[in-house]
Amino acid sequence: MWVIHLPRLNLAAVSVHRFLKKNQGKELTIAQYCEGILSGNRTILSRAVTLIESNIPEHQKTAQEIISRCLPFSGKSLRIGITGVPGAGKSTFIESFGTYLTSTGKKLAVLAIDPSSERSRGSILGDKTRMEELASDPNAYIRPSPSSGSLGGVARKTRETILLCEAAGFDTLLIETVGVGQSETAVHSMVDFFLLLQIAGAGDELQGIKRGIMEMADAIVINKADGDNIHRANSAATLFRNALHLFPPTLSGWIPQVKTCSSLCKTGITEIAQCLEDYFEFVKGNNYFEERRSAQAKFWMHETIEARLKSNFYQNSLVKTDIALLEKEVTNDKINPFIAANELLEKYFKSIGKH
Amino acid sequence: MWVIHLPRLNLAAVSVHRFLKKNQGKELTIAQYCEGILSGNRTILSRAVTLIESNIPEHQKTAQEIISRCLPFSGKSLRIGITGVPGAGKSTFIESFGTYLTSTGKKLAVLAIDPSSERSRGSILGDKTRMEELASDPNAYIRPSPSSGSLGGVARKTRETILLCEAAGFDTLLIETVGVGQSETAVHSMVDFFLLLQIAGAGDELQGIKRGIMEMADAIVINKADGDNIHRANSAATLFRNALHLFPPTLSGWIPQVKTCSSLCKTGITEIAQCLEDYFEFVKGNNYFEERRSAQAKFWMHETIEARLKSNFYQNSLVKTDIALLEKEVTNDKINPFIAANELLEKYFKSIGKH
Repeated sequence: MWVIHLPRLNLAAVSVHRFLKKNQGKELTIAQYCEGILSGNRTILSRAVTLIESNIPEHQKTAQEIISRCLPFSGKSLRIGITGVPGAGKSTFIESFGTYLTSTGKKLAVLAIDPSSERSRGSILGDKTRMEELASDPNAYIRPSPSSGSLGGVARKTRETILLCEAAGFDTLLIETVGVGQSETAVHSMVDFFLLLQIAGAGDELQGIKRGIMEMADAIVINKADGDNIHRANSAATLFRNALHLFPPTLSGWIPQVKTCSSLCKTGITEIAQCLEDYFEFVKGNNYFEERRSAQAKFWMHETIEARLKSNFYQNSLVKTDIALLEKEVTNDKINPFIAANELLEKYFKSIGKH
Repeated sequence: MWVIHLPRLNLAAVSVHRFLKKNQGKELTIAQYCEGILSGNRTILSRAVTLIESNIPEHQKTAQEIISRCLPFSGKSLRIGITGVPGAGKSTFIESFGTYLTSTGKKLAVLAIDPSSERSRGSILGDKTRMEELASDPNAYIRPSPSSGSLGGVARKTRETILLCEAAGFDTLLIETVGVGQSETAVHSMVDFFLLLQIAGAGDELQGIKRGIMEMADAIVINKADGDNIHRANSAATLFRNALHLFPPTLSGWIPQVKTCSSLCKTGITEIAQCLEDYFEFVKGNNYFEERRSAQAKFWMHETIEARLKSNFYQNSLVKTDIALLEKEVTNDKINPFIAANELLEKYFKSIGKH
């Protein structure tokens, strides 16, 4: 497959490729990184993402410079979040849906937000081999999630990876989460469309998803609508449609859709792609698309500020000394939480004022 | 009514009452405040709440001392949050439900979280006269919401008022919100039970409530189930029951209930009271009640800390100078939000280090 596409690579990419072969493992300059990314070279893209994921300050510095230069070329993709509990069939869905998208000419990047603490609970992208077809698709780029770190850190890394993928020419991004942790809100804050994958089942089986997620969904897709399961999938779809009807209108004005599909039999996939197209036409028409992107950029600025203010506070040695006792007193109604908070704050501000 | 109950007042309360008459408008000592509150004197309770609501530092200091002394006597009530859109009939519901509760021997306090910005959108407690029966009930205490302030400030004041009401012997607290703003999460974080009041109606009329609120509810009550409306109310109840069925289990293990009632005809009220009793028996049995109270106390400590860290940052003069421009650049993809955040943070920490 690669051979067929080789002639389409531009000269810059080819020369970078040769350069890389010759300088395997050697550091690239920032200009070389940017040139490689903008020419769509995946090897260089991957190396840049590795810099983003690195916690070494020098790597971070290089990464930030690369991101800054790529920023003007980013933003031109549709960012789609996909979540669902373990067992909902996320990997086969992404495989089916993704290969359909590339068959229609899309350039697809698949990422995951999946902080290490949540990993054991059902990540798929750590295991690329479960998406064999997509993994060998020349128009798809799959990047397993950063291997460790706090949700804040992982979210930042994922968002920066999105920017580089866009600069590298990917026009459709799928960002996967596990659907059982804290990461859905983070994903929701970096995508344009949020898809919740569910499976049909009797009562309790429908209930695996975390509270609050259903209300974020722009579409709910009932997967595994095949064989004996079709009837149950259709019933589940009706239930969800009725439930969504009770929810207040979305900010975008879009009415969340409920679809069924079989990732295995590849049925219902076209309809989901059409639903996405309808959505993007709708939100680009009413300007919600741009507004949300702007709001998200601002959100991440403030989110970063607030996370750092908090970590600076809770890592302070005086705070660390006192907080456990105060928490205990607060819990036992020995002290008003507001008073306890003020005590800690006073100590904190005094101590950082000294430095 | 007051005359009948007068013999039940203890001597301390009577002497405080005489004292107050003699010293109308004069400052009380902290000991006098506490004695008055603990003896159940509402006039003194109201004056203490006024101190809590005051922004004058000296009042705040006195208030905090009163709260500290009353803390050991607080906590022994059932705290019930009630929300619903304007028009759902919150005031008549609280009137009916409240008078039923006091008729069964409960001592009831009714408060509201209702930051001024949200006030115009349907507050009821600013207008006590709409609950005439309850307002003249010797076993009920109605306190209109603080007249102004940020959500954080109002939430703190409401939570501190809860503590004093409990110390004054009120065993059941209703805390009302408007259901259209930001205050529901705050209320949810200070109550034991969250009741969502809805009305029946065709499609869209059901949708007034803010996203996310339905998933917080321990009970949904369809109000105005009377006259021609009974059938519609029952249909709405069925719809909500089906919808709740799709939600994941609650942390408490409690299955949220859907009830119908008529505040006007006073039907269905006993069943709601029974539902609350069942809930409290359930969560006290599985220890969730205590766990949640502890978690809430901790939450308010951390919430206060984080709010203050943020306000300190955003009020900083250097931050104020730069933030608008950076936000604009972030919004226009001129600068990575993470870089913008770090720029501001660096300036901020340098500037407070100087003081």
